[in-house]
Amino acid sequence: MILEELRKRVYAANVSLPEYGLVKFTWGNVSAIDRELGYVVIKPSGVEYHNLRPDNMVITDLEGKVIEGELNPSSDLMTHSELYKAYPEIGGVVHTHSTEAVGWAQAGRDIPFYGTTHADYFYGGIPVARSLTAGEIHSDYERKTGTVIIETLRERGSSYKVVPGVLVRHHGPFTWGKTPEEAVYHSVVLEEVARMARLTEQLNPKAEEAPTYLLDKHYLRKHGSAAYYGQK
Amino acid sequence: MILEELRKRVYAANVSLPEYGLVKFTWGNVSAIDRELGYVVIKPSGVEYHNLRPDNMVITDLEGKVIEGELNPSSDLMTHSELYKAYPEIGGVVHTHSTEAVGWAQAGRDIPFYGTTHADYFYGGIPVARSLTAGEIHSDYERKTGTVIIETLRERGSSYKVVPGVLVRHHGPFTWGKTPEEAVYHSVVLEEVARMARLTEQLNPKAEEAPTYLLDKHYLRKHGSAAYYGQK
Amino acid sequence: MILEELRKRVYAANVSLPEYGLVKFTWGNVSAIDRELGYVVIKPSGVEYHNLRPDNMVITDLEGKVIEGELNPSSDLMTHSELYKAYPEIGGVVHTHSTEAVGWAQAGRDIPFYGTTHADYFYGGIPVARSLTAGEIHSDYERKTGTVIIETLRERGSSYKVVPGVLVRHHGPFTWGKTPEEAVYHSVVLEEVARMARLTEQLNPKAEEAPTYLLDKHYLRKHGSAAYYGQK
Amino acid sequence: MILEELRKRVYAANVSLPEYGLVKFTWGNVSAIDRELGYVVIKPSGVEYHNLRPDNMVITDLEGKVIEGELNPSSDLMTHSELYKAYPEIGGVVHTHSTEAVGWAQAGRDIPFYGTTHADYFYGGIPVARSLTAGEIHSDYERKTGTVIIETLRERGSSYKVVPGVLVRHHGPFTWGKTPEEAVYHSVVLEEVARMARLTEQLNPKAEEAPTYLLDKHYLRKHGSAAYYGQK
Repeated sequence: MILEELRKRVYAANVSLPEYGLVKFTWGNVSAIDRELGYVVIKPSGVEYHNLRPDNMVITDLEGKVIEGELNPSSDLMTHSELYKAYPEIGGVVHTHSTEAVGWAQAGRDIPFYGTTHADYFYGGIPVARSLTAGEIHSDYERKTGTVIIETLRERGSSYKVVPGVLVRHHGPFTWGKTPEEAVYHSVVLEEVARMARLTEQLNPKAEEAPTYLLDKHYLRKHGSAAYYGQK
Repeated sequence: MILEELRKRVYAANVSLPEYGLVKFTWGNVSAIDRELGYVVIKPSGVEYHNLRPDNMVITDLEGKVIEGELNPSSDLMTHSELYKAYPEIGGVVHTHSTEAVGWAQAGRDIPFYGTTHADYFYGGIPVARSLTAGEIHSDYERKTGTVIIETLRERGSSYKVVPGVLVRHHGPFTWGKTPEEAVYHSVVLEEVARMARLTEQLNPKAEEAPTYLLDKHYLRKHGSAAYYGQK
Repeated sequence: MILEELRKRVYAANVSLPEYGLVKFTWGNVSAIDRELGYVVIKPSGVEYHNLRPDNMVITDLEGKVIEGELNPSSDLMTHSELYKAYPEIGGVVHTHSTEAVGWAQAGRDIPFYGTTHADYFYGGIPVARSLTAGEIHSDYERKTGTVIIETLRERGSSYKVVPGVLVRHHGPFTWGKTPEEAVYHSVVLEEVARMARLTEQLNPKAEEAPTYLLDKHYLRKHGSAAYYGQK
Repeated sequence: MILEELRKRVYAANVSLPEYGLVKFTWGNVSAIDRELGYVVIKPSGVEYHNLRPDNMVITDLEGKVIEGELNPSSDLMTHSELYKAYPEIGGVVHTHSTEAVGWAQAGRDIPFYGTTHADYFYGGIPVARSLTAGEIHSDYERKTGTVIIETLRERGSSYKVVPGVLVRHHGPFTWGKTPEEAVYHSVVLEEVARMARLTEQLNPKAEEAPTYLLDKHYLRKHGSAAYYGQK
């Protein structure tokens, strides 16, 4: 059995999703990529979290061909794959239907940058993608979902390196990170930031985004060469 | 003691309701039907979940006559029974007072189809029934509750096969499924979809329903002959 | 040590409050009355729930004089006492600062009768009392809190027998019941009904109360001589 | 190793934050001060709560110089330090990103005094500080955060002794107390009061603050020489 270590990590990342309150039943999936082999390790489709084990993770190539595994891979595999192909520095991808993030995705709105919790991980608003067209949905739906995520960040003039997640319209969030664990972390952040932003607008319908210099300060306090948060 | 296996499943389905956060105290009930015998297995009325056991489930016929059991059946029995009679392909029915679904039932509104979490299980909006009349409430109330659920789906031109649940006005949700376990699953979905739809409208009071082609895609990805979600 | 059995029940009822999610820290209290002796058993003031034991419950008479106990009784004792004196058929009283009920108390609004969860336990709206005057607050505050609760139900033309709880303005709920356990039950119901009513209005700001015949049906299905819910 | 007892208390106070639901990941910190030595004991920066131990707490002086400890102190150290210097009677400081409090901080609004839960611990509204200027953020950001908190209470004509917490604009709450445990307690209160106030306004957009005589009564019932809540 190949990629034993990565199987274990992808397994652990998948079972952490319900523990973080981000998924019910089978409504989420985590994958990781081995960049040398070009292989993706992903949750099998429709399997309950308590039945997952490291050895029933599915290994595929970037075109979706199963390399190792008895089960079908997550039906969202090709979305993950598109992201791995377009974003060379990511090592893990997560998809969930977490409640607050879905609220924004269904409302069709970007999550505004209202404060420092947001700024610590996302540089600027968290964008919602446009709706897929009927044509995109009818032909290669899951791959096109990835395409539209990529298009969204490009059109906002942003980058996957500083905005590690996008809301798919009428659907829910995809996040990513250097590792599968970091991708999960970003899903937790996104859900919490989505809740905070909703409360903010409820308390003040005219709430304004925080100043850019606060965004810069907090993002750069945690990221980049001058970061001084955390250890070393 | 008859139907031992089904008693165990109905018992387990009942105790799963508080675990899913769908009921407090005794405010919910699950039943199943044995189609060959024409017998219903249902929770006893007003018994706390921690006092339930497989052998105190009540077995009745479709007219509500107790076949086996010391306790009174759930007071909602005749609603379940009406659904079993009208919907030949269902094997289980669930009633709860889950908070978010009750919110929509009391608001008197259908839950709009805002996204894919909804589309994966319910084909189109989740309807709220009309209020029962004073006459219906005074005579055979619980049976009439079933009648009105059936009338609701028929008048919307929908079917119990693709919309596995209805909100009873001023009251709460009833759901069903091929098995009691699937009926419980649909209750969990309905509650979560109700919450997501509320957040959606809070964030965007003019939110629009998702396109029909997305509904078709997601519903058919999970159901029907061309389904490709899950295993096999 | 007198009233050993009742001490145990009052102790158990008090520790159930944080388990039901109704109180944080020391923000709630349950009492019971022994009608023969005319003695009240109540939680000591400001003691954390994990430090409670049956033997540190405080026993007082109806004027607040401590009969047995080393600790001060709950500062809300005289409110409980007023209710015991005015309502001869109650055996237990509960006060909490449960979040949703406090929302309505601070908003200064009765909880409307929107549905059957409400109707199963409260016959009609759950009233909020008027604000206490400065004079009432300055002299015998806790006793006057009881007086105002009693005045509220009287002025609405209702009765403590069918409306087992009132919201104290700017403060929070008091509930009661035939036993301390039933009083706790009513606190749980009130909190859940408060949440459901808030969601109802969020989804439909023009939501209307349910018809009176539904209120009658559900209240009488559970209470009174023709009740048929539950066992026996 | 110095200050062993205080290390244990600061450690325990830090790990209580996720237990109270106030922080995710590393998003919070508690410190305490030894007034005789003038030393602060604080959580290390960016370390997950399950990896904390009494002996990896960091000890610094009031200028931020590490006296004992291998790890970097919390990046918020200098905010804590400013508060210790300005407020001679406090012994502990807490910072979190608790959801409801952040909602008010991002909305840029003081939490109004709507009821007794609030009045029991905060004498009057809980203020939100003005935004820091770009200059303040660029130079000595964390220290300036403390300065602005102090300025806020002074400008409201209030005192840290009766308002044990302030919301930092676009950021989140800081609270304090005579001990680190009391500072944590105030963070729990602030979060709950923030939630109650949000619900209050949702139910009644024109809700009014409670009368001052009620504020006085409740605050003084618990604090000051005539207090009669609790034991002794």
